[in-house]
Amino acid sequence: MSHVLLIQSPDAVGLVHRVTDVLSSHDLNIIANDEFVDPETARFFMRTEFTGAVEPKEILDEIRSRISEKVDGAEVRIAPNTPKRIVIFAGKEPHCLGDLLMRHCNGELLAKIEAVISNHFELASLARRFDIPFHHIEVKSEDRLAHEETIQSVLQSYRPQYLVLAKYMRVLSPDFVNAYPNRILNIHHSFLPAFIGAQPYRQAYNRGVKIIGATAHFVTELLDDGPIIAQSVIPVTHAHTAKSMAHEGREIEKIVLARALSLVLEERVFVCGRKTIIFE
Amino acid sequence: MSHVLLIQSPDAVGLVHRVTDVLSSHDLNIIANDEFVDPETARFFMRTEFTGAVEPKEILDEIRSRISEKVDGAEVRIAPNTPKRIVIFAGKEPHCLGDLLMRHCNGELLAKIEAVISNHFELASLARRFDIPFHHIEVKSEDRLAHEETIQSVLQSYRPQYLVLAKYMRVLSPDFVNAYPNRILNIHHSFLPAFIGAQPYRQAYNRGVKIIGATAHFVTELLDDGPIIAQSVIPVTHAHTAKSMAHEGREIEKIVLARALSLVLEERVFVCGRKTIIFE
Amino acid sequence: MSHVLLIQSPDAVGLVHRVTDVLSSHDLNIIANDEFVDPETARFFMRTEFTGAVEPKEILDEIRSRISEKVDGAEVRIAPNTPKRIVIFAGKEPHCLGDLLMRHCNGELLAKIEAVISNHFELASLARRFDIPFHHIEVKSEDRLAHEETIQSVLQSYRPQYLVLAKYMRVLSPDFVNAYPNRILNIHHSFLPAFIGAQPYRQAYNRGVKIIGATAHFVTELLDDGPIIAQSVIPVTHAHTAKSMAHEGREIEKIVLARALSLVLEERVFVCGRKTIIFE
Amino acid sequence: MSHVLLIQSPDAVGLVHRVTDVLSSHDLNIIANDEFVDPETARFFMRTEFTGAVEPKEILDEIRSRISEKVDGAEVRIAPNTPKRIVIFAGKEPHCLGDLLMRHCNGELLAKIEAVISNHFELASLARRFDIPFHHIEVKSEDRLAHEETIQSVLQSYRPQYLVLAKYMRVLSPDFVNAYPNRILNIHHSFLPAFIGAQPYRQAYNRGVKIIGATAHFVTELLDDGPIIAQSVIPVTHAHTAKSMAHEGREIEKIVLARALSLVLEERVFVCGRKTIIFE
Repeated sequence: MSHVLLIQSPDAVGLVHRVTDVLSSHDLNIIANDEFVDPETARFFMRTEFTGAVEPKEILDEIRSRISEKVDGAEVRIAPNTPKRIVIFAGKEPHCLGDLLMRHCNGELLAKIEAVISNHFELASLARRFDIPFHHIEVKSEDRLAHEETIQSVLQSYRPQYLVLAKYMRVLSPDFVNAYPNRILNIHHSFLPAFIGAQPYRQAYNRGVKIIGATAHFVTELLDDGPIIAQSVIPVTHAHTAKSMAHEGREIEKIVLARALSLVLEERVFVCGRKTIIFE
Repeated sequence: MSHVLLIQSPDAVGLVHRVTDVLSSHDLNIIANDEFVDPETARFFMRTEFTGAVEPKEILDEIRSRISEKVDGAEVRIAPNTPKRIVIFAGKEPHCLGDLLMRHCNGELLAKIEAVISNHFELASLARRFDIPFHHIEVKSEDRLAHEETIQSVLQSYRPQYLVLAKYMRVLSPDFVNAYPNRILNIHHSFLPAFIGAQPYRQAYNRGVKIIGATAHFVTELLDDGPIIAQSVIPVTHAHTAKSMAHEGREIEKIVLARALSLVLEERVFVCGRKTIIFE
Repeated sequence: MSHVLLIQSPDAVGLVHRVTDVLSSHDLNIIANDEFVDPETARFFMRTEFTGAVEPKEILDEIRSRISEKVDGAEVRIAPNTPKRIVIFAGKEPHCLGDLLMRHCNGELLAKIEAVISNHFELASLARRFDIPFHHIEVKSEDRLAHEETIQSVLQSYRPQYLVLAKYMRVLSPDFVNAYPNRILNIHHSFLPAFIGAQPYRQAYNRGVKIIGATAHFVTELLDDGPIIAQSVIPVTHAHTAKSMAHEGREIEKIVLARALSLVLEERVFVCGRKTIIFE
Repeated sequence: MSHVLLIQSPDAVGLVHRVTDVLSSHDLNIIANDEFVDPETARFFMRTEFTGAVEPKEILDEIRSRISEKVDGAEVRIAPNTPKRIVIFAGKEPHCLGDLLMRHCNGELLAKIEAVISNHFELASLARRFDIPFHHIEVKSEDRLAHEETIQSVLQSYRPQYLVLAKYMRVLSPDFVNAYPNRILNIHHSFLPAFIGAQPYRQAYNRGVKIIGATAHFVTELLDDGPIIAQSVIPVTHAHTAKSMAHEGREIEKIVLARALSLVLEERVFVCGRKTIIFE
């Protein structure tokens, strides 16, 4: 089994050498290595995939110690390359959920889909086709917090590492979002930051754009403002209605969400402020 | 020589038949024909390219008469497929101007570039390589109107049918814009409506997008708000700085501007409100 | 319910008028209309989608009669816009079959998937998740014809209008192919005509291409030579192995096959010799 | 000024460390670093861009010595990041030549265009607009070698580091090609290996493809068979003739050629057998 080492810190000369020294001294074999220094912030990012018999805690301490001799405030972690527990939130539209269920079923995702949660019941049968628990958590009143509390109690038993909003059309409260920092992925059906908020295809239609897009991003307190992970676009013409844009947009929505999720599951995504650094 | 017939009107049954009847009765040969009815506004658009000995005024009157029996307010015109007179506005960056000059020189544009106007002198030698008059109209004070008056007086002698802003970095006054309705093309270096205004690449960099774009549009009173003619995008990563985005963005800026200009010169673009209907 | 009228014939002046006259005289409402004349062969193609109370046989006879006054050898047909019966052939790879089953389940295909046929058993459970009959027809000997006879006997009960080869890795005999002229769709995992035959990703890897593709086409007697319906590509680099190309190629294979199938099901595809004319 | 260090050798543990040790010991500052090990051939590639006061010969010897302790047959070189001398070969079509001349004029190429050579005279005026010497070397007889000898005698005075065939429509002899190993770039107007040889757009039209392409590659003895540097594609439909494909294909031909040339000039391209390894 391989592990992934992830480092984010202020830049300094010799960091890479210090890290690879530790790995070499433990006879670990580097199979992929990427580094990046952001020229604007002088921030250093490193992702190293390695194999070998490893006691992660020990390696971690040693690397932290060697790095702290050069810079303060480094964030270092080691993650095993094993499937992550995820829970998918869905609404009424089946295409994104169906795509993730199918990839999961075909062994394409480094994840175990623990459950599907929805405020609607339409997609229950789809989840059941794939033998995934489906929780219909109805919105009974205007009380968003009560609804989210019910969701939290359901989530508890699954201990999900990531939540995936697969066309879940409700806005989550800041408290809920902050409980999963950089661990909630959303697909927004526009080329952000264009067309934030409701009905982006209608907005795109009204503006008369010639290209539409989809954006997968981490969810933050501000609506549609979180760090972008992946985007894709398709051309449209005057002959498209808002409805036919939505129809064709589904094709890229599901692809962009699946791609972003794979990047996150394979520990390829760093978040730094409002941006992502991604080693593909 | 071919002509292009362009009709925009409320929709009604039988409009196409009425138009083709007139053309047939004059022994004109249709070589391309496109129609579109916007389902939202029930507005009818028709573009017909035809050859044959033609007295445009006569045909025009006849078509207008036949259409007015069915609907009111039709806009009908006939344009010969001949080169249009254009004037290009440029700033300091050579890539868009150079691209248009080269296409003009190679006979790829259905246009005669009458002159280049710039508030800077950097591109004078480029225009001269192609034997195109270059007018350096300096901005001497804060007085935008005085500057535009000088421009207008220069333009007078060229009687341009279209003005092309090829990375001209100044905002034109409403009065100036309204003197050329749907006849000023601009290239904006972002995927509109994202990143309106100044320094769009810097804005894109700050937002952490994974795709950047360029948009060619007609200029209206509202900044970067006019009807979009063409858009294109390229992928970027965290490794791009605002500067390298600008560098790579040039490649699509020049292509999008040239494509939009060609569509306009070949009379393929209708403007309806804030949108374009384009028959490619 | 709408119908689609499809005409292919030698070109002549006035064909469109003759056809629309017939439709108008029966009070049928044209909702989409496309024509194309191939300049090289002077062949005329027309697709008209219309609504209204219709006796297709009567309309068909009338149109054939009006067209035959001008040209010989016209092929005219009218098809109702209703789901077609299809049977999918699969091998061991789940991505294309899974994609079609999911679209079928979500109501995105104008088709009823009658059954899945495979020479392997791996995808049986996938078909069963969607309650679609799965026939494992094993290849017991080198005798291709015996195998195909068994397939034919299974097909009989389903009377499929189209067969879809969703990564079915066997070559069909000319006799089998000719029993379904322009009615068998295949997905080939290369940008045809590059890399015909076996292991196209290995071939692409060996050639060192920077882009790989997928091609959906009708099956003819000659391997990978039938009329192309849709193609798509993705970029690759030196870092891709033949295996990782195959992995990423799946993403476009399933999209291209689904797009081609939709075009065929919606009666948007004409075949003329080795080419397709497609009205999107 | 920066330098680029390029290493190609059999892979071994510790190569990167040995190289960076040498650079560090000379106080050289690494500003970009890329490595790749081809899993199929176990071949190691490294490109390092660095700044600092440097005696290339000395560094080179030291690196070669340190690497030879681990592996045999390493190819190591250091190139200054300065403009290369190039000569462009052209035919009658202006778009690729014009694009390169314009980029050269705008300071976008890390090259000095020494001269343009053509077997036709049509593009003489284009070269002269940019003050570049133009040599019309007519093909007077069937004697290819005599023609090439004249070319060689003209080239002598320019000592070009690279030759760029910008739609030069003649095949060069093996002797000529071998005089410039991996130093002649060509643009082929198809998505190689599809449509090798003459009239690729006509071939593409006849095959009925839905996408056309362009390929920039190094020239080898075998026609259109050399290592591919860059490729790009655009969609086409049944409505395209061979001629309109050629027209639209120009747009990508010039872009692909310019991109490939930039990669080569910036020393980003390794050739290994029939493939390229490119560090962008």
